[in-house]
Amino acid sequence: MSRVYNFNAGPAALPLLVLEKAQAEMLEYGGSGMSVMELSHRSKEFAAIIEAAEANVRKLMGISDDYAVLFLQGGASLQFAMIPQNLRREGKTADYVDTGSWASKAIKEGKIGGSINVAWSGKEENYVRIPKATELKLTSGAEYVHICSNETIGGIRFTTFPKTEAPLIADMSSEIMSRVIDVSQFGMIYAGAQKNLGPSGLALVIIRKDLLDRCPESVHVFMRYQTHVENASLYNTPNTWGVYILKLVTEWVDGLGGISGIQKINEKKAATLYAEIDSGDFWKCPVAKEDRSIMNVVWRLPNEGLEEQFVNEAKKAGMVGLKGHRSVGGIRASIYNAVGQDAVNALVAFMKDFKAKKG
Amino acid sequence: MSRVYNFNAGPAALPLLVLEKAQAEMLEYGGSGMSVMELSHRSKEFAAIIEAAEANVRKLMGISDDYAVLFLQGGASLQFAMIPQNLRREGKTADYVDTGSWASKAIKEGKIGGSINVAWSGKEENYVRIPKATELKLTSGAEYVHICSNETIGGIRFTTFPKTEAPLIADMSSEIMSRVIDVSQFGMIYAGAQKNLGPSGLALVIIRKDLLDRCPESVHVFMRYQTHVENASLYNTPNTWGVYILKLVTEWVDGLGGISGIQKINEKKAATLYAEIDSGDFWKCPVAKEDRSIMNVVWRLPNEGLEEQFVNEAKKAGMVGLKGHRSVGGIRASIYNAVGQDAVNALVAFMKDFKAKKG
Repeated sequence: MSRVYNFNAGPAALPLLVLEKAQAEMLEYGGSGMSVMELSHRSKEFAAIIEAAEANVRKLMGISDDYAVLFLQGGASLQFAMIPQNLRREGKTADYVDTGSWASKAIKEGKIGGSINVAWSGKEENYVRIPKATELKLTSGAEYVHICSNETIGGIRFTTFPKTEAPLIADMSSEIMSRVIDVSQFGMIYAGAQKNLGPSGLALVIIRKDLLDRCPESVHVFMRYQTHVENASLYNTPNTWGVYILKLVTEWVDGLGGISGIQKINEKKAATLYAEIDSGDFWKCPVAKEDRSIMNVVWRLPNEGLEEQFVNEAKKAGMVGLKGHRSVGGIRASIYNAVGQDAVNALVAFMKDFKAKKG
Repeated sequence: MSRVYNFNAGPAALPLLVLEKAQAEMLEYGGSGMSVMELSHRSKEFAAIIEAAEANVRKLMGISDDYAVLFLQGGASLQFAMIPQNLRREGKTADYVDTGSWASKAIKEGKIGGSINVAWSGKEENYVRIPKATELKLTSGAEYVHICSNETIGGIRFTTFPKTEAPLIADMSSEIMSRVIDVSQFGMIYAGAQKNLGPSGLALVIIRKDLLDRCPESVHVFMRYQTHVENASLYNTPNTWGVYILKLVTEWVDGLGGISGIQKINEKKAATLYAEIDSGDFWKCPVAKEDRSIMNVVWRLPNEGLEEQFVNEAKKAGMVGLKGHRSVGGIRASIYNAVGQDAVNALVAFMKDFKAKKG
């Protein structure tokens, strides 16, 4: 077997232990006589899987009964459309913070069917920093404040979260379960699973229950959070395989000491990589130091030719997914939960070698 | 290994060959050094998977370039909401045929955001038959006519399809690729994957391209078919694992002689089972003979106590998923493409034995 070091931005690396378990159980799950994919979503076996997945999420993130936990489809992109439909009532507005590519996509959907206010935008600065709380021009009486807590492309994150009067809603797709957060600070948290939780095609939604009754009946039944809450994510057939893998991933996180345990590992990985990036003038990280993501690390080389060489030679050395997003160029290493210190060490060793040859 | 005979209504049985291939490739897909779930949806490896999946669907079903083929999320249930939003223009109406539980769910969403006409309903007859074409009260100038071509719960299907002036739209979730159909008769065909195509969390949509420009800009970007057509199903991260399994399943169908090959197998399976059901008075199929589904076969026993015994004893004999849907009771055997003649033979042998003991 020759598995590579996988720095993909998403879908991304999964824990080897999870893949091995999924492989072992592929033809026959437990005593069911069939694969997980062949189980009825109404079977007792799948009920046990989805209930355990929810219990794991609640335990790891410390989620109280004031919140519903949902396993939906459509990724974060469907959430961009569901949030304004469900949570912005007729004639009201909502605040959006524009920190980059993903925040912008949420804003695009927010503009449909009602009004929004962009409370701050980093666009003219090329999205290299997070606003200070005092910079946000929030609207009095807004229905919610929407942020993307970690921008996968820009490599920036809210190291601390603004305290807002309106419920704070965060797209945490690229950093969910990577660090300890206080869920009670949020009205809603959501995340596509394909970075830190499992495969693509699954979205985790954590929503404060008092927000559910805002949704008018003019919204399609499938698009209402209330529909999925009432049916415990089984209004229609969920992505059963995705829920199963998420259950295995959350068990793996638990085994590493939960989110506080994995946060320590993640901080060390990020520190290792940023230390090399900051060690001289060959690499250059465009991002404000206090806002640097510990999941998506972006940097530049002296010129684009060298960046291309770097990506190609890294690939030959068994490290893939290092090309920066096409919209910004440069290098990006996504070092999600399942990317180990060994992968980061290998990358840094390669970087030192590359710099010695080309620098 | 002790795999059971799986008569689940969906998620349902998958071909063993497909599961074995997925198992073998779980840790490392091709030369990629990672599992399919860890591949970027923008990678050349995944591009090859999704392009092959589309090519397989087009080849097997004989789909011309007049149609787009999409791999979406949210199952058929999201389609129930997307269809009226995309295809019923302001002030216009659409016809819906109510043949059972799934048609009714589509109708529920159709009533939101505009008007519909129920062209026929089998509700008062307990959904035991399909209307004749002459019974449909279609609206002149309707935007489309919606049918569910095979009702999973009722066990009935459109053996032939009505010729309609407005584009015909069919939910084919529980019979897609089970028999040869002429796609050019339809404006749109869609199906949740979890019965005949792969795992849950994936929907196949086949839509005639001239219908795409009906959608107004008041519809959320994610909800527009045009968005997904322009981006070849990669507007956001698709269910990559689901697409991969669908590719394997369609290869397996191709290996059995394509859809005409599998139709012969399916017709023989259904004939075997209905022959036993019709052989005397012990079993009773409530469905009009000419409308009997060859995918979902439903029948009753003399009383509910015997039905419960039947389900329980069948389970002990290694046959699962035979309990009828809770809304109708009785017995249901879903004999999708991946359920072989051997499974049907085993079921019929068990039935003969059960009847001899209890009849």
